[in-house]
Amino acid sequence: MTSYQLSEQHADSRPDDARPSPVTVLGLGPMGLALADAFLQGGHPTTVWNRTASRADALVARGAVRADTVVAAVAASPLVVVCVLDYDAVDTIVGPAAGVLPGRSLVNLTADSPERARATAAWAGAHDIGYLDGAILTPTTTIGGPDAMVLYSGTEAIHAAHRKDLQTLGGSGVYLGPDPGRAAAHDVALLDIFWTAMSGVVHAFALADAEGIPATSLAPFAQAGMRLLPDIVAGFAQRIEQGRHPGDRSSLRSASAGMEHVVAAARARGLDTGVLDAAWRLVRREVDEGHGAEGFSRLAQVLAVGPG
Amino acid sequence: MTSYQLSEQHADSRPDDARPSPVTVLGLGPMGLALADAFLQGGHPTTVWNRTASRADALVARGAVRADTVVAAVAASPLVVVCVLDYDAVDTIVGPAAGVLPGRSLVNLTADSPERARATAAWAGAHDIGYLDGAILTPTTTIGGPDAMVLYSGTEAIHAAHRKDLQTLGGSGVYLGPDPGRAAAHDVALLDIFWTAMSGVVHAFALADAEGIPATSLAPFAQAGMRLLPDIVAGFAQRIEQGRHPGDRSSLRSASAGMEHVVAAARARGLDTGVLDAAWRLVRREVDEGHGAEGFSRLAQVLAVGPG
Repeated sequence: MTSYQLSEQHADSRPDDARPSPVTVLGLGPMGLALADAFLQGGHPTTVWNRTASRADALVARGAVRADTVVAAVAASPLVVVCVLDYDAVDTIVGPAAGVLPGRSLVNLTADSPERARATAAWAGAHDIGYLDGAILTPTTTIGGPDAMVLYSGTEAIHAAHRKDLQTLGGSGVYLGPDPGRAAAHDVALLDIFWTAMSGVVHAFALADAEGIPATSLAPFAQAGMRLLPDIVAGFAQRIEQGRHPGDRSSLRSASAGMEHVVAAARARGLDTGVLDAAWRLVRREVDEGHGAEGFSRLAQVLAVGPG
Repeated sequence: MTSYQLSEQHADSRPDDARPSPVTVLGLGPMGLALADAFLQGGHPTTVWNRTASRADALVARGAVRADTVVAAVAASPLVVVCVLDYDAVDTIVGPAAGVLPGRSLVNLTADSPERARATAAWAGAHDIGYLDGAILTPTTTIGGPDAMVLYSGTEAIHAAHRKDLQTLGGSGVYLGPDPGRAAAHDVALLDIFWTAMSGVVHAFALADAEGIPATSLAPFAQAGMRLLPDIVAGFAQRIEQGRHPGDRSSLRSASAGMEHVVAAARARGLDTGVLDAAWRLVRREVDEGHGAEGFSRLAQVLAVGPG
C-alpha cells in the first residue's frame, strides 16, 4: 500500500473497499424514487417503503427490498432517508416508528421551513435518534450525478458517519453546521428567488404574447438578461453585508420608473399585475421616504414588518 | 479594389471611408451621456443639449458642441437621438422643435410602455418626422462596447438609413420590424423578469439575514441556482408556444408547497411577504381549479383578467 492510499484511508471513516452500507428510503415520490435509485446503483442494499406500495415495483425489479411497514423498513438499515411532501407527512410516517429508530440515523431530505426542521430535530433528539436535516437544491434528474447539490445541517457526528453513503446521491454535499434549520433556511431563501423569478418569467411571456411577441422570440433576450443576474447578485450581497447601497449605476427611483412602465403595459393589455404591484409598492415607499437615489439592494434591509 | 471590398460597399448605404455623419443627442442623464460619448468617440460631429447645460461640460471639453436650445440642437444634425426619463419628458422637450424636425430622423431611446411608443410614432408621422423607437437593454457602461444591446422598431427605411451610425453605440443592434411599439414591448417584458427576479433576490437576502446567514454565504448558492434559469426559460417558451404544460418534472402543486414553505419561513421572521403572496395566490387558484398536476408554465396563459 502506498502512502497515498494510506492517507486516503485515514481521511475517511469507511475505507474505499468497504461494502456500501444498507440504506432505507421512506417515500417514493419523484425525488424519493431518484434517491432510492441512486443508492441502489451505488451498490447499497436498499430497502424502500411507500404508502402506495406499487410505486416500488421498478426498484424491486432492480434489486431493492420492499418493506410492508415503516417499522420493518426502518429496522432494515442503520441509515434511514425520508423524502416526502412536507414535515406533516414526515410526522405521520416516521412517528409510529419512533420505537425502532433509536440508535439509527434519520436523514430528512423533505423540504419545509427552518422552524419545522428544528422541531423535527428536537423530536429526534428526545427519542435518541441521530438526526440530520437536508435540502436538495437540484432536480430529480441530477440525483446520483455530478450536478446534484444537497445541503445538510444538524448533528456533526451523524453527518460524518454517513458522509460517504450520502455521497452516493452525487455531486456536492455541503455540511452547514449543527443548527438543524440551516439547510432549510438556505433552501427557502433559494426557493424565494426561484419562484419569484419564475413568476416574473410567466408574466413576461403573458405580456409578450399580448403584444404579439411569440414566447420563443422573447426567450433569447430573456436568457441573455438572466446571464447577467449572477454577477448582480454577487454585487448585491457585498452591499447588503456592508449595509451601503450606492445608487450610482441604478437607483430605486429608476427602478420605480421601470416598474411603472411594466405595470402600465400589463394593465393596458388586461393582465393581472399583483406580483409587480407588490414589488413596486415597496420601491415607491422607499422613494417617498427620501431614498430614491439609493440602490435597489437597500430593500433587503427594509422588509421587516414585525413579528409574524 | 478587390471584389470583397466591392461587395462590402454594396452591402451598405454609407461606404466605410465616409465621414461619420453629424448626430444630436438630447438629454444627458447617465444613459444620454454614454450615448453622446460613444458618438463622439466614433468620430461623429456631436451636438448635445440638456436642460441643465453644465451636464455637457465634459463632453464639450472632448469636442462636442453644446446647443443653447432644443431647436438649435435639432437643426444641427440629420439624426437626432433622444434619451430622457420617460415619454412625458420627450413630449416636453421635443414638442417645441416640431417645426425643425421634418425631414430629419428622430431616434427615441427613452424607455416607456409600447403604447407611448406608438403614440409618439403617430405624432412624428403626422409631422413628417422620420421616427425610430429603441430600447437599450444593457447598462450605461456597455454603450459603445461589444456588450451593448439595443432593440429598434419603427419605419424600416429610417433604420436602414442610420444603421451604420447606430452601430457606433456598440454591440448588437436588432431591428424588430415596423410596429414602433415592438422594441418597448420587448423592453417591458424583459424588465418584468428583471425587476420581479430582483425583488425575489432582496427578499431572499432579508430572509437569509433573519436566519443568521450572511449575504455572501447565500450568494454562491443563489448564483448557482440562477445559472439554471436560462435553460428553464427556454423550456417554458417551448411549452407556452405549444400551449402544453406537462408537470412531470415540477407541478403547480409542488410549486405551491415550495411557496408555502417560503412564506411560512418569512412570516415566522416578521418579513413582508406581499410579492410572494401575490405569486402564490395565482398558483393556488390554478391548483384549486384542478390544474395542480400541470406545470408552472401554464400560468403564462391564465394571467389575463380583462381590459385594463
